[in-house]
Amino acid sequence: MSNATGLTHECGVFGAIASFEGENNCNIAQIVYVGLEALQHRGQESTGIATSSGNDDLHVYKGMGLVKDVFKGDNLKHLPGHIGIGHTRYSTSGASTNVHCQPFVVHSMHGSLAVAHNGELVNCGSLRKMVLDRGVGLSTHSDSELITQALCLIPPDGEVNGPDWVARIRHFMHLAPLSYALVVMLKDRIYAARDPYGNRPLCLGKILTHNSEEINGHPTLNGYCNDDDSEVSDGWVVSSESCAFLSHTRYVREVYPGEIVEMTQNGIKTMDIVPLPVGKPQAFCIFEYVYFAKPNSIFEGQEVYEVRLECGRQLAKEWSIEADVVGSVPESGNAAAHGYSQQSKIPFGELLAKNNYVGRTFIQPCNKMRQVNVSLKFSPIASNVRGKRIILIDDSVVRGNTMGPIIKLLKRAGATEVHVRVASPPIKYPCYMGINIPTKGELIANRLELDEIAKKVGADSLKYLSVEGLLKAAQKNNTNKRKGHCTACLTGDYPGGLPEELKW
Amino acid sequence: MSNATGLTHECGVFGAIASFEGENNCNIAQIVYVGLEALQHRGQESTGIATSSGNDDLHVYKGMGLVKDVFKGDNLKHLPGHIGIGHTRYSTSGASTNVHCQPFVVHSMHGSLAVAHNGELVNCGSLRKMVLDRGVGLSTHSDSELITQALCLIPPDGEVNGPDWVARIRHFMHLAPLSYALVVMLKDRIYAARDPYGNRPLCLGKILTHNSEEINGHPTLNGYCNDDDSEVSDGWVVSSESCAFLSHTRYVREVYPGEIVEMTQNGIKTMDIVPLPVGKPQAFCIFEYVYFAKPNSIFEGQEVYEVRLECGRQLAKEWSIEADVVGSVPESGNAAAHGYSQQSKIPFGELLAKNNYVGRTFIQPCNKMRQVNVSLKFSPIASNVRGKRIILIDDSVVRGNTMGPIIKLLKRAGATEVHVRVASPPIKYPCYMGINIPTKGELIANRLELDEIAKKVGADSLKYLSVEGLLKAAQKNNTNKRKGHCTACLTGDYPGGLPEELKW
Amino acid sequence: MSNATGLTHECGVFGAIASFEGENNCNIAQIVYVGLEALQHRGQESTGIATSSGNDDLHVYKGMGLVKDVFKGDNLKHLPGHIGIGHTRYSTSGASTNVHCQPFVVHSMHGSLAVAHNGELVNCGSLRKMVLDRGVGLSTHSDSELITQALCLIPPDGEVNGPDWVARIRHFMHLAPLSYALVVMLKDRIYAARDPYGNRPLCLGKILTHNSEEINGHPTLNGYCNDDDSEVSDGWVVSSESCAFLSHTRYVREVYPGEIVEMTQNGIKTMDIVPLPVGKPQAFCIFEYVYFAKPNSIFEGQEVYEVRLECGRQLAKEWSIEADVVGSVPESGNAAAHGYSQQSKIPFGELLAKNNYVGRTFIQPCNKMRQVNVSLKFSPIASNVRGKRIILIDDSVVRGNTMGPIIKLLKRAGATEVHVRVASPPIKYPCYMGINIPTKGELIANRLELDEIAKKVGADSLKYLSVEGLLKAAQKNNTNKRKGHCTACLTGDYPGGLPEELKW
Amino acid sequence: MSNATGLTHECGVFGAIASFEGENNCNIAQIVYVGLEALQHRGQESTGIATSSGNDDLHVYKGMGLVKDVFKGDNLKHLPGHIGIGHTRYSTSGASTNVHCQPFVVHSMHGSLAVAHNGELVNCGSLRKMVLDRGVGLSTHSDSELITQALCLIPPDGEVNGPDWVARIRHFMHLAPLSYALVVMLKDRIYAARDPYGNRPLCLGKILTHNSEEINGHPTLNGYCNDDDSEVSDGWVVSSESCAFLSHTRYVREVYPGEIVEMTQNGIKTMDIVPLPVGKPQAFCIFEYVYFAKPNSIFEGQEVYEVRLECGRQLAKEWSIEADVVGSVPESGNAAAHGYSQQSKIPFGELLAKNNYVGRTFIQPCNKMRQVNVSLKFSPIASNVRGKRIILIDDSVVRGNTMGPIIKLLKRAGATEVHVRVASPPIKYPCYMGINIPTKGELIANRLELDEIAKKVGADSLKYLSVEGLLKAAQKNNTNKRKGHCTACLTGDYPGGLPEELKW
Repeated sequence: MSNATGLTHECGVFGAIASFEGENNCNIAQIVYVGLEALQHRGQESTGIATSSGNDDLHVYKGMGLVKDVFKGDNLKHLPGHIGIGHTRYSTSGASTNVHCQPFVVHSMHGSLAVAHNGELVNCGSLRKMVLDRGVGLSTHSDSELITQALCLIPPDGEVNGPDWVARIRHFMHLAPLSYALVVMLKDRIYAARDPYGNRPLCLGKILTHNSEEINGHPTLNGYCNDDDSEVSDGWVVSSESCAFLSHTRYVREVYPGEIVEMTQNGIKTMDIVPLPVGKPQAFCIFEYVYFAKPNSIFEGQEVYEVRLECGRQLAKEWSIEADVVGSVPESGNAAAHGYSQQSKIPFGELLAKNNYVGRTFIQPCNKMRQVNVSLKFSPIASNVRGKRIILIDDSVVRGNTMGPIIKLLKRAGATEVHVRVASPPIKYPCYMGINIPTKGELIANRLELDEIAKKVGADSLKYLSVEGLLKAAQKNNTNKRKGHCTACLTGDYPGGLPEELKW
Repeated sequence: MSNATGLTHECGVFGAIASFEGENNCNIAQIVYVGLEALQHRGQESTGIATSSGNDDLHVYKGMGLVKDVFKGDNLKHLPGHIGIGHTRYSTSGASTNVHCQPFVVHSMHGSLAVAHNGELVNCGSLRKMVLDRGVGLSTHSDSELITQALCLIPPDGEVNGPDWVARIRHFMHLAPLSYALVVMLKDRIYAARDPYGNRPLCLGKILTHNSEEINGHPTLNGYCNDDDSEVSDGWVVSSESCAFLSHTRYVREVYPGEIVEMTQNGIKTMDIVPLPVGKPQAFCIFEYVYFAKPNSIFEGQEVYEVRLECGRQLAKEWSIEADVVGSVPESGNAAAHGYSQQSKIPFGELLAKNNYVGRTFIQPCNKMRQVNVSLKFSPIASNVRGKRIILIDDSVVRGNTMGPIIKLLKRAGATEVHVRVASPPIKYPCYMGINIPTKGELIANRLELDEIAKKVGADSLKYLSVEGLLKAAQKNNTNKRKGHCTACLTGDYPGGLPEELKW
Repeated sequence: MSNATGLTHECGVFGAIASFEGENNCNIAQIVYVGLEALQHRGQESTGIATSSGNDDLHVYKGMGLVKDVFKGDNLKHLPGHIGIGHTRYSTSGASTNVHCQPFVVHSMHGSLAVAHNGELVNCGSLRKMVLDRGVGLSTHSDSELITQALCLIPPDGEVNGPDWVARIRHFMHLAPLSYALVVMLKDRIYAARDPYGNRPLCLGKILTHNSEEINGHPTLNGYCNDDDSEVSDGWVVSSESCAFLSHTRYVREVYPGEIVEMTQNGIKTMDIVPLPVGKPQAFCIFEYVYFAKPNSIFEGQEVYEVRLECGRQLAKEWSIEADVVGSVPESGNAAAHGYSQQSKIPFGELLAKNNYVGRTFIQPCNKMRQVNVSLKFSPIASNVRGKRIILIDDSVVRGNTMGPIIKLLKRAGATEVHVRVASPPIKYPCYMGINIPTKGELIANRLELDEIAKKVGADSLKYLSVEGLLKAAQKNNTNKRKGHCTACLTGDYPGGLPEELKW
Repeated sequence: MSNATGLTHECGVFGAIASFEGENNCNIAQIVYVGLEALQHRGQESTGIATSSGNDDLHVYKGMGLVKDVFKGDNLKHLPGHIGIGHTRYSTSGASTNVHCQPFVVHSMHGSLAVAHNGELVNCGSLRKMVLDRGVGLSTHSDSELITQALCLIPPDGEVNGPDWVARIRHFMHLAPLSYALVVMLKDRIYAARDPYGNRPLCLGKILTHNSEEINGHPTLNGYCNDDDSEVSDGWVVSSESCAFLSHTRYVREVYPGEIVEMTQNGIKTMDIVPLPVGKPQAFCIFEYVYFAKPNSIFEGQEVYEVRLECGRQLAKEWSIEADVVGSVPESGNAAAHGYSQQSKIPFGELLAKNNYVGRTFIQPCNKMRQVNVSLKFSPIASNVRGKRIILIDDSVVRGNTMGPIIKLLKRAGATEVHVRVASPPIKYPCYMGINIPTKGELIANRLELDEIAKKVGADSLKYLSVEGLLKAAQKNNTNKRKGHCTACLTGDYPGGLPEELKW
């Protein structure tokens, strides 16, 4: 799917801590800044960074817009300290304002804390009632304020009425098992936690700048590596995706589902692993592989690019056809198209040039000239299109709005056949765990049969990858032994079942 | 070459005229706007549009910035009329201000005119002196004001002292043979002209919105077509590149070197073809193929993509080597990499993911953390890099600043060998015809021998395409019989020789 | 004192409710907007408006900057409803961000509420501890969030654990007797309350637009009027100052010290009057008369202009001297200068023309030209200055920075003598009730004796009004029988004594 | 007249040159900047500064907006040099764009020049034709481009075909006798010239920063002084008004009507005085006294404030009436009100407080509340209004839009009578010499008789100063022996007669 209109991410979180003692002039905000830029594809609406210099006077700056626009000028310099967390938020309708920016920072009786998260609390309704009933005023409807105030409150049974933040986080995770990747910063530490189902991604890395020669010779940087904590590091990072571990940081491992990790200057430490409800499988969001994540991110021990390549190969096995060229809607379908080409032996070819600067659609200039409703975002590359039978790969088809104009463009440029192959199954159900999916009526797969879709978009044929094919691709090189994936939007099978209040 | 730092374009021009009579409410600015967006890659510094409703009160709006930023809100609505020209200008240092925005519009004794051009007058010094000596004050150092005032002036011999604008343009072209693609708008017509050497590109197209069914069945749209003027059209367009002929317009032909074309509501008409100095060959800028133009643009009867693919094939013939994967620096080297792969039978693989939002380079956050000077614009895709022998294709290497960090990235991610193959010859000489080339000292090919460059950037080997190979690629499917190309920046062989004042 | 540098206000509050039933399309935000503009002199840093359409989904928009800049475009239209409150906040250092903008809006267990206030809680430290100890996280250090969460919390004794907001406000006022003017908006009403000492001003007015003819004949509009509630009104307004009751609203009366007023569609109603601690006098801020308020505002039954005029007369009685002309530093000293002129029979004359657009101070343009440190904000009017003995009136002298350059200007323009007369006593002590007074060391009256100040600023003599003279002026036409005034910044005599934590 | 809507100025010019040799680091732009800020009341639409470091590479920066907004940040630093001129332009409709910003800078055959002017060429039509006929393209309809190109052109008879700029300026002044104050900057000098009629003001001053002690003792600074050129100065300034000679500069004298002054590092020198057509009197714009100029500016040897005071006295002589208080519409009528008070012995009182921040007019918030069309810019000061008979002075009444609401305000606040006295005669005719006067139909004095105007605005009586009274006031202390004034807008008597093309 071209990234014009479709699914929207739910956010990215990033945290960093410098590991050495006595560093007074550290400006960790620089590292958080770069991490957030690398996670910007997970949210472009707003962003924020909170930092600590070791005392309760946390620093925070948030704003609407891209990371590079919010943190202009000297804004980063005004965020001193060696500990920091940041957030980047998805783009929604104009209603959203800067009160929803994260991290959310409060003073509590046990010191200041800053909270940022990716995900959506499935049972936010009952949690909200609990907090209001305790006499707290909530200034927004956001989950992040709710999480923060829930962490601050003394529960009736007094279990966590002291400054034991791990106990407070554990208590919260029991109350709300789904779904979040959470970072909580205190004056001298960061807690990173992932929901027990492992629905939202979160991973750990090392800062390694002290010896760049050594790094040069190390083949694992920006690649796989074992959970080797023995090596001296300059600090630790936590991120929604490992693509944010740019050249000065190294991927270490995922935060385990349900795990609470404490990050201090002394290193990282597992404080607890909150278990899943008995009998429930893990449920990592399969659409992180299909659509959301950057191709070089690592989940469950494998690179996303590899899974997408395999999706393309699976697709070729499931739905082969004779053709002259395999191409993609750039750039979302590239990996799958290469996979399809490898499996089918049909050569890959670039079909479309991106018109990077063309934004508006063409408007009727006068009475006699009729409006032409064609996407101008792409132009055909005639050399690969003219007189060719084309297999056109996309990663997903959600509403089906963009595929039609692209096929029209290819046919006008001389394509003799266009066969669409979608490298994921049709989306049919809404998501309550942090993905903004169009309403049922907008999802093309709920409205039309397969051949109707093909006809509507003008394709000579149109096929989707099967759920089984997708799961097979996601599991091929998967090193996570429990391997559970959430396919709710494809199958309607929600992890933990659908909460009473959400039944439809 | 990654498009971060290198050569800069010299501008794009676009013009449009609605062909039917009595159209009072036409807003041709809409069409010019879309055309300029599609030419935005030729200049991002400033832009402007001038339109005419048929009388001498021309409308103009210009400003610094991208087309979409300058023409926000209701700006387009304030540009009424059925005739319009526009311009998009290259990005230079901060010194440039909005006085240089084109089109340049003046009132003259024979009515108003608007002028926009791409190119650089090689003999601007003597032309400028002529204009000043006639008692005209020039408010800028820009060629476009100079051209405009030259067109307005009565020459001493009185040859063009009347309202015969073709005579004035012809007179100017004799005075200044190199280099420009020029559009001149009067209240009721546009003149399009190309320098006699054909150095700068310019082409013509038709507006065809009246019968979209017919268009659907027409295989030539956005592709090649003959100079078939018999078909009824809704109007005419002129553009620096045919990539700006989006789905509602059709490519017709190039403006010939030296040609003056008159565009009116009645159609297009060749008014004159100003000849080259005797014995001089044509000199179309070879770097439009290599670097500047969009891959789907058409020059001399062939698609740019095709030439780039052939450059890759030539490169494989000239400089083959054993390897596991052929890849490119996205997206500039893509076509050549595919060509190299086809010729060499070594599989193509995506090596690098673009970090679209990562802008700033990583800054030293504190004393202990050393600055890491690595480009963060790309991240390696481990699946195609780890343990692989890589052939890395780029379209050009100008300063050599970006290649080194990319190779470092690939090696750190586990590449065992990186062999650089450049799909064009080394740039060694400055350009005086509209391309902003770094100074001799900055050009890496002037400073270092081939193996020194390889060593500096960390490549296991590094080779350039030969000038002969490039010319062969550019001529393979070339339908222009005279086929002359300017290779001055590669060979120092300037078309028409170097003017006295420029000798160095 | 010229308003360049000196004391800063602490905020303005405004509220309005339309009194008729069934008004669905009312946009009361328009009225709040105009009121806030008229209170803008009390704070230019940030502003905000919250409105209600009768349900718990309150609307709010806040931002940094002037009222006219924050509420641009369609912002007001997005604030529907017939009930609204607004706030305008003082200008401080760059540290302040938009998290401090008021009104503060929260959802509570008993519905949504919006809170805005002017003033400063003297015992905020102990209140803050109480709120944090109850398990609430506070996102700012602002009093307004503290007040809001305090109102929401269930107190231990359960007194106000129900939806009785009057009881909650009363409880808060007992906990915090000083100082505030407070407006609390619920979905269907506004509560307006003033601290028991009456330190901060707050007054009530009527909206009277239904019969403008009647208004035309009514001499009391924008003037004094009795507490005549019998007249039909179109709604009610509450404001820090009556200057915000522009032509469509009429001043009714002050909110009494300690009073809680309920404003609904049915009118206004006194719900309670929280008494002062036994034996304590009222303490209305005397500097509202001297400096802060607009001259046409009404406090304690008298117009501020009248009090300032009387201060000038008192000053002439206390410190007479022979001179040719009495003038002022425009515009702050105008009223007192006219009073001084009336009492002394020395003619008033305009001494200085304001250079409205001159902002920056003159900067040394080159080595030879020395920097001239003279205020360029004023230029002398020679006709009234040349060869004249001048009495120069200002309302106050805080730091003494601006008086010196003005006297220099007058002397250079030919004044033979300049005698400064200040229409208020010297400021010597800090304020903890909402006024931002410079530190002790910055206050010129703490650093220098009277004749030293005169010498420093270049005056031939310099005298201040006595505290007794000021109080006499403030009480001349005062209709408030208890007439207590806070003169803490002049005398160090703090109302209620200085809290333990603030002793210095 | 309150300055909301009425006449608009036509521009301000300022120039400065440092007088000492060898000053390389001089940044005269700083001085021009402050001068322009002090002339900002003459135009708020756009501004610009051009400077010279002594060579032909002039520096210029121009933009839309106030001086302080256009020259933000480092803009001034990028204008090096010891010679500079600047301009500030009046505010007109949205049609105006930055192409009209002055100074206008061109390269000519005899070096670069920058031109700025205040005024309007009465015979611009014939001048324009002359320039176009010579083969020059004009990019705007502005007089300043026209003047610049006219200065550059070689006239047919070859009179000024050399680099003799004085001859060129003289030639221009013969061609266009009315009206302008003109500054022309070359690389090493400034020429200042005033039209032969002396219609637009222009004056000269000295920069005196080298010995500030001496200045301190000098009573003439910012006051009157003789044309004493013997004193050593640090440089010279030229300005539309002397109010721009702030504390570091001293007023010297006016540029005489028709005079061409050369300003160099060596001082100032009269190069020529172009005479008036025989029999024509001088015609200095009387409205500079009435309305445009700052009160502390000096024209014809007298301070503007003094003339306005005298207008008030004349008005009291012509139109006395019994009343309790004389007041003004602040601040435009202040001086005249004081004059009226002095003559009539009726005490002056402040009637209105300015609502500085109230911008928008009150908008109907809902169906039931009717729109109240009352100016909110002022509020009455009840102490001076309630129960009083008021004489209300304004400097002029043009459209009569603002007077009505103000009288309404005063009456509602309890004024028993309001008698309007206007300190200038009614405006009845358009101006072609640089003042933007409303159309005949908009001028209230053309539409209504005196008593009709009084009735319309709700005044108990309304009287204007007579033309004779105004002229008498302007001549009382006038040191200009020829004393001619332009009263065309009052009498229809145009200096030099009305050009054929303008007759109506």
